[in-house]
Amino acid sequence: MKRNPSTIVRLFPSPRAYLYAMAFFFAGGWLLHALTAQEGIGPGEIEFTPFSLFSDPRYSAMEIVALIAVLGIAIGGLLYAFLLARQVVRADRGTQRMQEIAAAVREGANAYLAAQFRRIGPLIIVLTILLAVTYTGTVEAFRWGRAVSFLVGALFSWTVGFVGMRLATTGNLRVASAATRSYGEALQLGYRTGTVTGMLTDGLGLLGGTVIFLIYGEHAYEALLGFGFGGTLLALFMRVGGGIYTKAADVGADLVGKIEKDIPEDDPRNAATIADNVGDNVGDCAGMAADIFESYEVTIVAAMILGLASFGHIGVIFPLLVRGIGVVGSIISTYTVKAGAGNTSDTALRSVHRGFWIGSIISVVGFFILGFFYLRFDAEYIAMNPMAVGGFPNGDPLQLSWFAGLGIPGLDLRPAYTCLIGVLLAIVLNKVTSYYTHTAHRPVKSLAKACDTGHATNVIQGFAVGYEATVTTILVLAGAILISALCYAGAGPLFVAFGVAMTGIGMLTLTGNTISMDVFGPVADNANGIGEMGYEPQKMEATAPGNYRRARQILADLDAVGNTTKAETKGIAIGTAVVAAVSLFASFIAVIAVGSEDKINQMSDSQFMAEASRLTIAEPLVLVGLLIGGAVPFLFSSMLIGAVGRAAFYIVKECRLQFRDTDIWAGIKKPDYGRVVNICTNTAQKELIGPGLLAILSPVLVGFLLGPYALGGFLAGMILVGQLLAVFMADSGGAWDNAKKLIEDGHYGGKGSEAHKAAVTGDTVGDPLKDTAGPAINPLIKVMNMVSLLSLGLVLSYSLMSNRGESPLISVLFVAVCVAGIGWAFRQSRKESPEDSEEV
Amino acid sequence: MKRNPSTIVRLFPSPRAYLYAMAFFFAGGWLLHALTAQEGIGPGEIEFTPFSLFSDPRYSAMEIVALIAVLGIAIGGLLYAFLLARQVVRADRGTQRMQEIAAAVREGANAYLAAQFRRIGPLIIVLTILLAVTYTGTVEAFRWGRAVSFLVGALFSWTVGFVGMRLATTGNLRVASAATRSYGEALQLGYRTGTVTGMLTDGLGLLGGTVIFLIYGEHAYEALLGFGFGGTLLALFMRVGGGIYTKAADVGADLVGKIEKDIPEDDPRNAATIADNVGDNVGDCAGMAADIFESYEVTIVAAMILGLASFGHIGVIFPLLVRGIGVVGSIISTYTVKAGAGNTSDTALRSVHRGFWIGSIISVVGFFILGFFYLRFDAEYIAMNPMAVGGFPNGDPLQLSWFAGLGIPGLDLRPAYTCLIGVLLAIVLNKVTSYYTHTAHRPVKSLAKACDTGHATNVIQGFAVGYEATVTTILVLAGAILISALCYAGAGPLFVAFGVAMTGIGMLTLTGNTISMDVFGPVADNANGIGEMGYEPQKMEATAPGNYRRARQILADLDAVGNTTKAETKGIAIGTAVVAAVSLFASFIAVIAVGSEDKINQMSDSQFMAEASRLTIAEPLVLVGLLIGGAVPFLFSSMLIGAVGRAAFYIVKECRLQFRDTDIWAGIKKPDYGRVVNICTNTAQKELIGPGLLAILSPVLVGFLLGPYALGGFLAGMILVGQLLAVFMADSGGAWDNAKKLIEDGHYGGKGSEAHKAAVTGDTVGDPLKDTAGPAINPLIKVMNMVSLLSLGLVLSYSLMSNRGESPLISVLFVAVCVAGIGWAFRQSRKESPEDSEEV
Repeated sequence: MKRNPSTIVRLFPSPRAYLYAMAFFFAGGWLLHALTAQEGIGPGEIEFTPFSLFSDPRYSAMEIVALIAVLGIAIGGLLYAFLLARQVVRADRGTQRMQEIAAAVREGANAYLAAQFRRIGPLIIVLTILLAVTYTGTVEAFRWGRAVSFLVGALFSWTVGFVGMRLATTGNLRVASAATRSYGEALQLGYRTGTVTGMLTDGLGLLGGTVIFLIYGEHAYEALLGFGFGGTLLALFMRVGGGIYTKAADVGADLVGKIEKDIPEDDPRNAATIADNVGDNVGDCAGMAADIFESYEVTIVAAMILGLASFGHIGVIFPLLVRGIGVVGSIISTYTVKAGAGNTSDTALRSVHRGFWIGSIISVVGFFILGFFYLRFDAEYIAMNPMAVGGFPNGDPLQLSWFAGLGIPGLDLRPAYTCLIGVLLAIVLNKVTSYYTHTAHRPVKSLAKACDTGHATNVIQGFAVGYEATVTTILVLAGAILISALCYAGAGPLFVAFGVAMTGIGMLTLTGNTISMDVFGPVADNANGIGEMGYEPQKMEATAPGNYRRARQILADLDAVGNTTKAETKGIAIGTAVVAAVSLFASFIAVIAVGSEDKINQMSDSQFMAEASRLTIAEPLVLVGLLIGGAVPFLFSSMLIGAVGRAAFYIVKECRLQFRDTDIWAGIKKPDYGRVVNICTNTAQKELIGPGLLAILSPVLVGFLLGPYALGGFLAGMILVGQLLAVFMADSGGAWDNAKKLIEDGHYGGKGSEAHKAAVTGDTVGDPLKDTAGPAINPLIKVMNMVSLLSLGLVLSYSLMSNRGESPLISVLFVAVCVAGIGWAFRQSRKESPEDSEEV
Repeated sequence: MKRNPSTIVRLFPSPRAYLYAMAFFFAGGWLLHALTAQEGIGPGEIEFTPFSLFSDPRYSAMEIVALIAVLGIAIGGLLYAFLLARQVVRADRGTQRMQEIAAAVREGANAYLAAQFRRIGPLIIVLTILLAVTYTGTVEAFRWGRAVSFLVGALFSWTVGFVGMRLATTGNLRVASAATRSYGEALQLGYRTGTVTGMLTDGLGLLGGTVIFLIYGEHAYEALLGFGFGGTLLALFMRVGGGIYTKAADVGADLVGKIEKDIPEDDPRNAATIADNVGDNVGDCAGMAADIFESYEVTIVAAMILGLASFGHIGVIFPLLVRGIGVVGSIISTYTVKAGAGNTSDTALRSVHRGFWIGSIISVVGFFILGFFYLRFDAEYIAMNPMAVGGFPNGDPLQLSWFAGLGIPGLDLRPAYTCLIGVLLAIVLNKVTSYYTHTAHRPVKSLAKACDTGHATNVIQGFAVGYEATVTTILVLAGAILISALCYAGAGPLFVAFGVAMTGIGMLTLTGNTISMDVFGPVADNANGIGEMGYEPQKMEATAPGNYRRARQILADLDAVGNTTKAETKGIAIGTAVVAAVSLFASFIAVIAVGSEDKINQMSDSQFMAEASRLTIAEPLVLVGLLIGGAVPFLFSSMLIGAVGRAAFYIVKECRLQFRDTDIWAGIKKPDYGRVVNICTNTAQKELIGPGLLAILSPVLVGFLLGPYALGGFLAGMILVGQLLAVFMADSGGAWDNAKKLIEDGHYGGKGSEAHKAAVTGDTVGDPLKDTAGPAINPLIKVMNMVSLLSLGLVLSYSLMSNRGESPLISVLFVAVCVAGIGWAFRQSRKESPEDSEEV
């Protein structure tokens, strides 16, 4: 095979493709502008003054103070993150050689994020403008409020991902260095690196929500939607791009290294090793951090929107205060995570888990005390917030059951209960994930055993395990939603939805701890890689005999702990998608009911019920929407899996080429790591456009083609199938991974046996499922939800199925643009490079 | 390892388990009887005389004649089947050795069906009684009408499976013998063997529907539901049992033979070969035939129920007549399938396809001519059938659009159009399946190429292909449902549902041809096996030089043709599940609306709409039902895949044991085929109980626990996820299978290469997906639909969430029984035998 320069060139983002995408959006923008101009913006029906809540008599002084306090906590969280970051940066940086390797990884990671920024940046700008232009309401301040909030949400999401990755690539070196000194120091440093990202997520998420509420008060809905959309969209891109990057590098490195050449992972002769390590940061740090940030953001957005529409301002301030308590709980509990110098992974894991428990207890006690004092409703409050009437039996808060009010007149602890359900849900989801993916339990053992009869039986058993895992998970989620709904039995649908939203708030109360646990995984993994490539055994042994082996063992142990903590947190992120989506459904119906988002506060219960009843599965259009919605997660996953395959193919080719250089193979010449990093970076950028377009355009297409009710069905189908598929892929992948580890620990013949080969096959199959397609479905669900909500105003006016009297030509145009966009994305995802399409 | 007799004993159906299951049902029966007694059966509100339609003035003499003619066609179809069967039986039976092998296969197949009959028979009797006892209506004649129809439906389904398998095990020998003479003769014999089953399906399905209608007239609903349930339930058991049997044998034989010992498929030394051949018959003939019969039955049941409730008697007679035309089309077109003596597989395939086209054209022309003359509505008809008013603009058939009536006043061709959509849908689904699973197209080629980089990349690429296939399929189905619904735009919801039901009728118009094509697959496969094991090369070469190789080539070609035709028809069966389920949804709502099935004719449009509107996804209970419903197909598949794994494990053990006998390995001693056949038979019987209980009990549980609306959501979720999962598994499995064939044809190194090993892994992974779990989801969807409809009367009275004032204790009891049953089924499915649970 000749080294064909066109291969490399083709990998770069094709400027033409880029141009097309931009043209789509600009054409859309122009169209929309023409439309809104045609409608004419009448005199504002709604009066709006920013920061009016400070002078609003409905808000007590205590509430204003509490909001300011939340703001303070948010800033405090950011400060804590900054202090930890400084600790990490100042830690010892190890030897020259280790620094070199860490620098290569960091450079690769930075190059990736820079490339992504160049590609996504303009899209975000265009979407910001588009959001402003397509605003169908009547208040000019909301037009830009939403657009700017979108931009801020996107920037926050980006920041979390960026800083998380920067810190991780800083921390890995320090952890590798600390491991030469003590176990405890290494663990603490790694965990704190994760905590920085965790607290950043907490701080920025809380800051955004609070500031928007302070500015917009009861009209926060508009801006919050934009804020949530910005966060999810960025997270989707980071997840997709990072997921493709990390698995292409991993699969490519494994295929060439472990399978073809039979050399260990992280062997410095393999040109793909640096890319593999970069991938861990790009996928598991940047992607995961942005993803959880987005979950944190969307759950607070859902709770604030529904809180306002149901219980009035108490309903919006309570979730903010709960989040504030959660941040305090995280700060305290993450600081307690420590390990002694000579500890083992078991005690380390116990310390991490103890931190989580401490945080949970602080939070739960905190928000029950808060609820006891704050959640008081009386006739005066209801007179000022008339929407709250539907939330109480006969509209009277004094008639609440003993369960809700502990017999104290006017007390309504239901929001605290639903929050508690969320906390418990997070814990149960952690346990479920751990049961299906941890080596200590039956499922992973059954996989290891199946390896004994070959590749195929391992893969088949993985299907059985993954299917069962997703069933258990969705039943747990359904149970939690059911119990949350039962807490509000008898109340109106918006109140029930608020209950579900509060469950989402509860789930992510301990985001700080969750992210710390998650990011710790790739940091430890990378530190291990730096140890493998960067430690100098002779030198180390010369200084202190036995030190090299001890340090390597510490790193291996930390890597195992990291794998476990990382796996445990996976269930939470995906679970939030369903909970947030279910609660956002109520907003969706509310908008259909009143015809435009800014009138949402004027909606009556009967209007809501009338529209909700049209979203019936008995209606063929809704059912067709449901079927189409269910198809999207499959198509999306298919695209991503294909993308990983294509990218890995290029990497394999490049590595084979470099291995042919006998100097590289002998280990005397450094391979050109940069080429592989470049291939990964560029392929990931190129491949994320297709799935991204699918996520943005498919709900718009369904809405314009089949109308708002079909869009409702679409959302339901997409949530259901997305959830099932995501957990199936994440957990089967995790189980395969650990089955391999189990065999490598010496079971069924250990490393090198036939069983081990079968286990490696399972692990490789699971890689794109668990780290690319599976986790990307979480932001996918939320992006499609947000797009549906944001485009609903236009859909109501211009859908082909709607009868609101607008010109069908415009609808046809919209449909055509969406079809062209999705078709292009799909074709793009199946395109093969010239050499790739050899005829069979 | 010692030969442990307890292993074998444990495989036999545990009498205790059986007793438990029976006790459940009896307890349920007793409970139900007590309940109905308590309600008291009041004086019949409905007058009913069997066969009253003969004296009903609403039915014209022509209609009565037409119905009798349909009866005649049904009997004609059965006669045609009988004639073909005689042809097959009388064909030449080959040499002594071939007969011996065929006899072994036939014996095994018969033993399986006998064992299954012993196990399922009592269950069917119990269910028959239970159905009679739980009847909540007021007419005694319906009580037993439904129960007996259930029994008849089950018997018919059983008969189709049984005869289909008997014929296949007769035909395979004859085809192997005919192959020694000519290609044309062998093809024709194989195809006709399939046609017998096809015409039996047509004949029995049509007979049952027509007779029920003649007896019950406008009350046919009651009996039809029983008839449909009987058919689907039996089909589910045949599919599940057959699927487990066939793949356990196949996977077991491959693991030991191809992978461990490196001997070819069908090597007579392998003790699992006979079981493998039995499995083809048990799974692909008995299972598939019963499955398509059930689809045929359920679609006509749905169309008749909805036809009666919407357009009155024209609505029920038209589908019967369309089916009659389809049978005539099948008779004519299947008879045209021929091939010359020296033909190749291409021309053979063309002949089979031409047969399908001829049948389609006859049917479409036929039912449009019929529609033109029969589908006439005037004021008089509407006066006699007032329910039809909602089906026309302003209730006036003269105001139909030009599209519906071709400008002829009173003509309404919409049922014919929707039928045509169904025919087209069947053709498109065939093409889609063929695109994703045939070697000539991109997907299979991409798999073969992925084999070049190893096991894992092949499996990963299979995921991508399978995901894409299921997306395409569901989009096609959604499109067809949408267009059918648009045909009835403006009409009431029952009319729309009738349109969708007619699409189902259209899809299965050519059932005769479909089954011929399908059954041809296993017959050819088996004939090939008999050739491998039963031909005596020396003798054959002595008589006519070159004959052995020619005959083997013919059999190999036929096998390939059979694989293609079999694969092509798979899409249809699964597609009918969605179409039938969507149309049955309308009956579901109608029953909720009027509270009991026998009042369905008294329902008003506004009642229907009121209930339909409560099935909204905005209602948390419906959404929770949706989530649970979506989980069931995953759980069901997980159970089935696990079952195949367990069964295959026993087979591998047994075969390894027999291979240790050096005489068997040397080929001088015949292995004990019977032991493996026994293991398969008994494991399949044992393993089908768990999934069967899940299918029957889970809708009942959801209904009693969460109420009728959640049950509606449950059905929707189950349909959506079931469809997506079924096609994913069927098509990815088919693609892996053919990728292996492609490599065996010499690509990427051909047989024995590393790529081939990877391809075998893919094929083995796909086996339980495509032949066990995937196809079983079709009857699963329908069984759960039927159970929901049948138990709805009780659910409405006794659900924990309903407010109809019955004692909650009884509901709790029901829930407890269901939970216990499902829990037991689930535990059973995870139980491992003592040797199996070695600690890791």
